[in-house]
Amino acid sequence: MASHPVGKSLFLGSFVHCKSLDKIETFHDTAVFVDEKGVIVAIEPQCDEKKATESLFPKLCWKSGDVTIRSTKPGQFFFPGFIDTHIHASQFPNAGIFGKTTLLEWLNTYTFPMERSLADLSRATRVYTRCIQRTLSHGTTTASYYATVSVPATNLLADLCLSHGQRAFIGRCCMDTLSPEDYRDESPESGVEDTRKTIAHIAEIDPGNQLITPIITPRFAPSCSSELMSGLGALHKETNLPIQTHISENHNEIAMVKELFPEHAHYTAVYDDHGLLTPKTILAHAVHISEEEADLIKKREAKISHCPASNSAITSGAARVRWMLNKGIEVGLGTDMSGGYSPSILEAARQASLVSRHVAMTGDDAAKLSIEEILYLATKGGAKVVGLGDRIGGFETGMEWDAQLIGMGSVDEVGGMKEEEGPVDIFGWESWDNCIEKWVFNGDDRNTRAVWVKGRLVHERNGCK
Amino acid sequence: MASHPVGKSLFLGSFVHCKSLDKIETFHDTAVFVDEKGVIVAIEPQCDEKKATESLFPKLCWKSGDVTIRSTKPGQFFFPGFIDTHIHASQFPNAGIFGKTTLLEWLNTYTFPMERSLADLSRATRVYTRCIQRTLSHGTTTASYYATVSVPATNLLADLCLSHGQRAFIGRCCMDTLSPEDYRDESPESGVEDTRKTIAHIAEIDPGNQLITPIITPRFAPSCSSELMSGLGALHKETNLPIQTHISENHNEIAMVKELFPEHAHYTAVYDDHGLLTPKTILAHAVHISEEEADLIKKREAKISHCPASNSAITSGAARVRWMLNKGIEVGLGTDMSGGYSPSILEAARQASLVSRHVAMTGDDAAKLSIEEILYLATKGGAKVVGLGDRIGGFETGMEWDAQLIGMGSVDEVGGMKEEEGPVDIFGWESWDNCIEKWVFNGDDRNTRAVWVKGRLVHERNGCK
Repeated sequence: MASHPVGKSLFLGSFVHCKSLDKIETFHDTAVFVDEKGVIVAIEPQCDEKKATESLFPKLCWKSGDVTIRSTKPGQFFFPGFIDTHIHASQFPNAGIFGKTTLLEWLNTYTFPMERSLADLSRATRVYTRCIQRTLSHGTTTASYYATVSVPATNLLADLCLSHGQRAFIGRCCMDTLSPEDYRDESPESGVEDTRKTIAHIAEIDPGNQLITPIITPRFAPSCSSELMSGLGALHKETNLPIQTHISENHNEIAMVKELFPEHAHYTAVYDDHGLLTPKTILAHAVHISEEEADLIKKREAKISHCPASNSAITSGAARVRWMLNKGIEVGLGTDMSGGYSPSILEAARQASLVSRHVAMTGDDAAKLSIEEILYLATKGGAKVVGLGDRIGGFETGMEWDAQLIGMGSVDEVGGMKEEEGPVDIFGWESWDNCIEKWVFNGDDRNTRAVWVKGRLVHERNGCK
Repeated sequence: MASHPVGKSLFLGSFVHCKSLDKIETFHDTAVFVDEKGVIVAIEPQCDEKKATESLFPKLCWKSGDVTIRSTKPGQFFFPGFIDTHIHASQFPNAGIFGKTTLLEWLNTYTFPMERSLADLSRATRVYTRCIQRTLSHGTTTASYYATVSVPATNLLADLCLSHGQRAFIGRCCMDTLSPEDYRDESPESGVEDTRKTIAHIAEIDPGNQLITPIITPRFAPSCSSELMSGLGALHKETNLPIQTHISENHNEIAMVKELFPEHAHYTAVYDDHGLLTPKTILAHAVHISEEEADLIKKREAKISHCPASNSAITSGAARVRWMLNKGIEVGLGTDMSGGYSPSILEAARQASLVSRHVAMTGDDAAKLSIEEILYLATKGGAKVVGLGDRIGGFETGMEWDAQLIGMGSVDEVGGMKEEEGPVDIFGWESWDNCIEKWVFNGDDRNTRAVWVKGRLVHERNGCK
């Protein structure tokens, strides 16, 4: 199951990816050769199908009959798959439901009851299947998921990601304090033990972690005892598996951490002192971290998942992404669904742009993020945050083919509209850059015509290809 | 042309509308009877098709064969059409394109060149047709449009709105200073004269302003001479036609107004002193107005169009809607496309929610707008802003049938997804309120299955009805 054998593929036409934080690179008339392992083995400029098959196939020892060919139509382009560095699969049914709550009230009102209910595996199947299909349809090729406390339901999420072909980090939620009596780990020891069960399950279904990787997931400091966090820190040391948690999202939460962990210098130090602040740690939010905390995060090479839709929706605050980037911290985007209302990373990118403008309004004009920057965060930045910067997030030889085919709608001579082409209107006079801007600000899953993970076609729209 | 004769209609099933700013009202198993003028003549609770035809038709002297019947499917509901109180039809092709600009740079870089180019009527046909179709597809049944300086192109917009059946206010853009040499009114006199030409054209195509109403449109104080504004103020006094303009969107703009009009007390006074601040005036933005200005706006009973997507995108600021509402000022929503990136009022409503949370983050927790409130602003609030509070925005006997049919997607027992059902996932366990929240935060034009204006079906999706 784990390897999902696919054939060789040839992708032809236009390709767009982020070369660096502030530079988008576009290739036209290009051929990208992807082998049966999903790895890009060659990229050839000025290459059409004829040249590819006649000149390149022999060099690669490829036979035409073995190769699936997909070309972009005019205006279409291949773009790297999106990476969601922070998403709660178990909260999918609540997307859009948050009322006027803030974090702690939101957890008790909406979140814990929903998560607890997924111990029912038929319910979990329904929720997780739809979550995976929906996020794939939005172009999310890699997701760092929080599941629930339940081992069987968490393992089920791993199974479903593998069978649907979505690259995923699967986190069993660890929490042993300040959580509902009937929805928490029984003890620090059982918390660690149950985490090992999910690790063992994934080792069985995807031994080489080709697609699925377990991630150690202390929910957040307020719901974890010091003993549980120490146990998870030790587990990280033993396994070198990645870690994900939340940090400094909301003022009340920060106050609570200060009260619960008075002996630690600050919120970031709580994780650091338990061996949980590492180069493989993904910290979601970090809205209100201090200068000192940011410096410690940088020093430990921990990463930050910026979740702008969530931070605005549940009134957490406006994270200072420019400031983080200037410190050299790696930042990616997270939907944080359902704190964030949308399962779409494109929406998260839009919100990252808008939130950066709200930061700019308070005086720091340099805070504004550009189109290039938000797309970088959504792809290459996210890849670095999940520790896969060398494998996904861009189109380079040796990297894996996690990609989406983007197409937009064209306006005919009398202004007519073709419903199935989706929400973006291209008149034909736009520059290539303008087309990308239009996609980013008005596009949605309809513009994601097809999605591949590790060379495998995992989603395709029926309406318009 | 103007009356677009339609037959009688019977709408059956579930209806949702805003009763007041903080109250949504839902009717199930209800029948709404709309006559051939598009007016709701009866609303009958506990009424199915049988009862409607057998008991109500005779009372109304209706014959079954004359009546089109439309019923909601389970989970669907009729909702009032959205009212866009501020939208630039002429900027439609630029939706999503704004880079890192702020207002004045944005005008020169993107906006004026596009508007000027629409003097070419074939180009204007293409742009305006698509704009109308697109906004109708998003459920916008009434739009207060800015066109361009060009009389023929502005008149064309009026023609197209009428033929597509969208209720619209059509504003020829008046500007005679600080605008490109080749894109401005030649003189204050010609500015007024050209405005009269559009007024005369609309009087010809829709004599009773059944659907189309001219609106006096001084672009904004910085691009209008005092003479032009006085002329337009006098024109309002003469015709009692509505007025629309921009106010206090951006700090540089405000400084410019202060410099250009030093003899007036403040920005709001500039309009007031020219006879442009009236109960029929729509002021877009009002992001940075002072207490004194707000009080004057209230005193004059002028209205405010809140354009949150625009204000965030081009970094104008975060308007204090709660503060305006508390003062008793009428507020509606505007897309302000393409300062705002989206032609959708549903997106404007979402952004109104998020922007209100950014206002709350600065200390005023009461600033947060609820789902009820943003939907009110999008419908009934907007209706009051455009002066049609007694005719549209809700479902009451005597009001006109401007409505949209909303439908969402259902998740089957194994989590399967039907692409054509759109982006909102309903599991079946949600409360009715939760369904509305899900629609508001994740819905789009796919959920707007059909749209009516004044009883006429003006849009219907093919993909899913």
